[in-house]
Amino acid sequence: MARRSISLLTDFGYQSPYVGIMKGVIFNINPEATIIDLCHDVSAHSIIEAAFILEHSYRYFPLRTIHLVVVDPGVGTARKAILAVGERAFYIAPDNGVLSLVIASDNVQNVYEISEEHYWLTPVSDTFHGRDILAPAAAWLSKGLDSNSLGDRIESPVSIDIPAPRPVGSTIIGEVMLVDRFGNLITNIPKRVVEHIMEKYKISRFTVKIGNATSTQHVTHFAQAVPGNLASLWGSTENLEITVREERADTLAEAAPGSEVVVQFHR
Amino acid sequence: MARRSISLLTDFGYQSPYVGIMKGVIFNINPEATIIDLCHDVSAHSIIEAAFILEHSYRYFPLRTIHLVVVDPGVGTARKAILAVGERAFYIAPDNGVLSLVIASDNVQNVYEISEEHYWLTPVSDTFHGRDILAPAAAWLSKGLDSNSLGDRIESPVSIDIPAPRPVGSTIIGEVMLVDRFGNLITNIPKRVVEHIMEKYKISRFTVKIGNATSTQHVTHFAQAVPGNLASLWGSTENLEITVREERADTLAEAAPGSEVVVQFHR
Amino acid sequence: MARRSISLLTDFGYQSPYVGIMKGVIFNINPEATIIDLCHDVSAHSIIEAAFILEHSYRYFPLRTIHLVVVDPGVGTARKAILAVGERAFYIAPDNGVLSLVIASDNVQNVYEISEEHYWLTPVSDTFHGRDILAPAAAWLSKGLDSNSLGDRIESPVSIDIPAPRPVGSTIIGEVMLVDRFGNLITNIPKRVVEHIMEKYKISRFTVKIGNATSTQHVTHFAQAVPGNLASLWGSTENLEITVREERADTLAEAAPGSEVVVQFHR
Repeated sequence: MARRSISLLTDFGYQSPYVGIMKGVIFNINPEATIIDLCHDVSAHSIIEAAFILEHSYRYFPLRTIHLVVVDPGVGTARKAILAVGERAFYIAPDNGVLSLVIASDNVQNVYEISEEHYWLTPVSDTFHGRDILAPAAAWLSKGLDSNSLGDRIESPVSIDIPAPRPVGSTIIGEVMLVDRFGNLITNIPKRVVEHIMEKYKISRFTVKIGNATSTQHVTHFAQAVPGNLASLWGSTENLEITVREERADTLAEAAPGSEVVVQFHR
Repeated sequence: MARRSISLLTDFGYQSPYVGIMKGVIFNINPEATIIDLCHDVSAHSIIEAAFILEHSYRYFPLRTIHLVVVDPGVGTARKAILAVGERAFYIAPDNGVLSLVIASDNVQNVYEISEEHYWLTPVSDTFHGRDILAPAAAWLSKGLDSNSLGDRIESPVSIDIPAPRPVGSTIIGEVMLVDRFGNLITNIPKRVVEHIMEKYKISRFTVKIGNATSTQHVTHFAQAVPGNLASLWGSTENLEITVREERADTLAEAAPGSEVVVQFHR
Repeated sequence: MARRSISLLTDFGYQSPYVGIMKGVIFNINPEATIIDLCHDVSAHSIIEAAFILEHSYRYFPLRTIHLVVVDPGVGTARKAILAVGERAFYIAPDNGVLSLVIASDNVQNVYEISEEHYWLTPVSDTFHGRDILAPAAAWLSKGLDSNSLGDRIESPVSIDIPAPRPVGSTIIGEVMLVDRFGNLITNIPKRVVEHIMEKYKISRFTVKIGNATSTQHVTHFAQAVPGNLASLWGSTENLEITVREERADTLAEAAPGSEVVVQFHR
C-alpha cells in the first residue's frame, strides 16, 4: 500500500494543546504516520476560510493525502462526521460544508459517514470530536483501512455557499477571503475570470476599489509596487491579491475577511 | 525495542528559534526520532499551567512516549533535571514541580536525576538546559537507553501545590486553569466531583459564578448555549468549562487563568 | 547515502497556509523527508534577523541538514535562488544576503544558482518561489541529488552588512538583534569580544545602557537577577542578553530589534 500522509487544518490556534493531543491520538494508532500541519490559525469557527485554504492547498500535497479538517462549531450536535474520497486526496471533516469547494474541484464521487464506533476513542466527548472521532478515523485510514469501513455511504453532504465573485455592469464584485501574515488581502477573484472579460471586451486595464482605498497599479510581484500605495497582483492562489510594498494592505485599506473588493474595468 | 516518541511542551512560544534548535539537537542524536509538538504557548514561566496541560494530555499519546517539558524559570540555579518513569510514559523536566500531577496519576515509582554529563552537549550554557541537557536526554532515551543510565535515582522530586477545588458550604470553589483559543475558560473542577455531590445531596442543578458574571445554563455542547450568555459544560478534559456561543467567555466574564470560579448548588 | 534533514526558517508566520503548502510540496517529492521547523516568525521581510537566527542555530542540527530559508521580499525580481554548500550543512535561499553569516562561518566554498527548471513546479508563480522553486530544490537534494545538478556555480552571492559591534572609546556599541518570547533582548555583542577587552585592559566590570535604561548587574542565569531591574547575562547564543526577572526587558527598556546597546567598561 502506498503511504498516506495526514494533513491537519484547524481553527485551534497554537495556544492550546488540542492539536498536540490529536497528533498523539494519531501516532498512538499509527506509529508510522506522517503528519503535515497545513494551518491551525483559521479564524475561529470560520468554515468559509477553511474551505478556501483547503481548496488552494490540496494540489500541493502527495497523492492520497488524508486532509483532516477540524473547524467544528457544531460539535456535539446531530451534524455528521464524514470522509470524502476525491481523485487526488481523502478529506475527513465535520459535515458542515467545509468540504464544499474540494468536493467539486477534486471530483469527489463517494462520501461516507464516519459512524463505525469501533474506530472511535471511548468515551466520546461532546466537545472534541477532532480527538475522539476524526483523528482516529484519519489514523486508521492512513494505515490502509478501506474507505467504506468507516461507515455507510451518504448521498448529500452539506454544501454551503462560498462567496463567489459576480459581474455587475463594468465591474466584478468579490471579497477578501484571507489576510496573510504580511497584511496582503487575498480575494476570491480568479485571474482567469478577469482575463476572460478583458479579452472578450478588449479591455486594457483595471483598478481595484476596497473600502475607501483604490489600487491603480497592477504589478507582477510585490517589489514592483510603488511604496506607500495599494497595488494588485495575481497571487500564489492565482486569485487577485491586494498588497502594499513592505507595509500592511489590511491596515492601509482598513480591510478584513469579508470586505468587498470591486474590480473596475477601463477601456 | 518499541519505538519511543518524544512530545514537547514548552513556554518558548513560536517567535524564537528555541524549539527548533531543541528539535535539531534531538535529530542529531536520533535521526529516526518521532517528535510531537504538544504545545509551546504555555504562559511564560507558568509551571502550573504546564502541569495541568500535561496531566490532561498524556493519556492520548503512544505508550512509552517521552514527554519533554521545558518551563524552566530556574534554569542555571541548583535545581535538578529529572526523568520520571510512569506506567504509561516517561517525563523529562526541570525538577520544579511541573511533573507534580503526572507523578501521581501515572503512578511514577522511579525518578532519576539527569546528572550523567556524558549525554549532555558541551559546553553547557547557564540559560538553555532544554537544548543542552533535557533534549539530549530525551533523544538518548528515545533510542532505547535505560532510564537508570542518565543518573542516580532520587527520593523526593519537588512537588508543588496545583490549585484544587474545595467545597465551601453549598458551593465548590475552584479556578480557571487555562484559556483556549476560543476564549473558553477551562477550570480545575472535575465532573466527577460535582456529580458526586449532586447525587449525595440529591441536588438537581447548579449555577456558576465567575467575577461579576454568572452562568445559569449547563449544556452538553457549545452550540446548545444561548448566544450572548455564559454557559457551562463538561469540556474535553472532563472538567467544568465556561463558554459563550461563538464569542469569547474570557472577555465577557473578564476572566483569566487564576480567576475564581464558584459552583453554587440549588436544590 | 546519509539521510539529509530539511529545516525551515521563514517569515510566513503561522496564520497563513504557506508553510504547510511548502511541506506538502516537499513530501510530494520525497515521502521519506524529515522536516524540522526552525522558526516561522522572523519579522516580516527581515533578512538580517533570519541571518542571525540561522547563524546561531545551524550547529545544533544534524550534519548535512538542508536549511531552507524563505525571507524573500524580492520574490519575482531578478534576484537568484541559490544553494550554498558548507562544511556542516546545505543552505537554500533567495540570493539576498540572508546567508551572509553562514557562508563565512560554515566555510562555504561552493554556491550554485538554482536555475535548472526541470526540478521546479510548473507553472512558477511570481510571488511564491518558496513553494515553486526553493522547496522542490530542497526536496530533491534531500533525496541525494548532487549539489551541482540544480544549476551552475556562481562566484559572488549577495553579501549584506549584518550589524556588528564596534569599540568606541571605553565602550562597545552594538544593537538588539532579536527579542524572544519572554521579552529578553538578544544583542550582537559576543562574550569573547567583551572578555578579550576586559582581559587586555584589566577591566573588572561593565554596565549596559539601552535607551534610557541601564543594567548594572551582570548575572550568570535569569533567576539570579534582582527583580524589577535590567540585568545582563551571556545568553544561549554566547552573546550579551538583557533580561528582567520574570518580566519583559523589551517593555522596561522600550527596546526592539535595532535598538542601540552600549557596553560601558569600568576599571
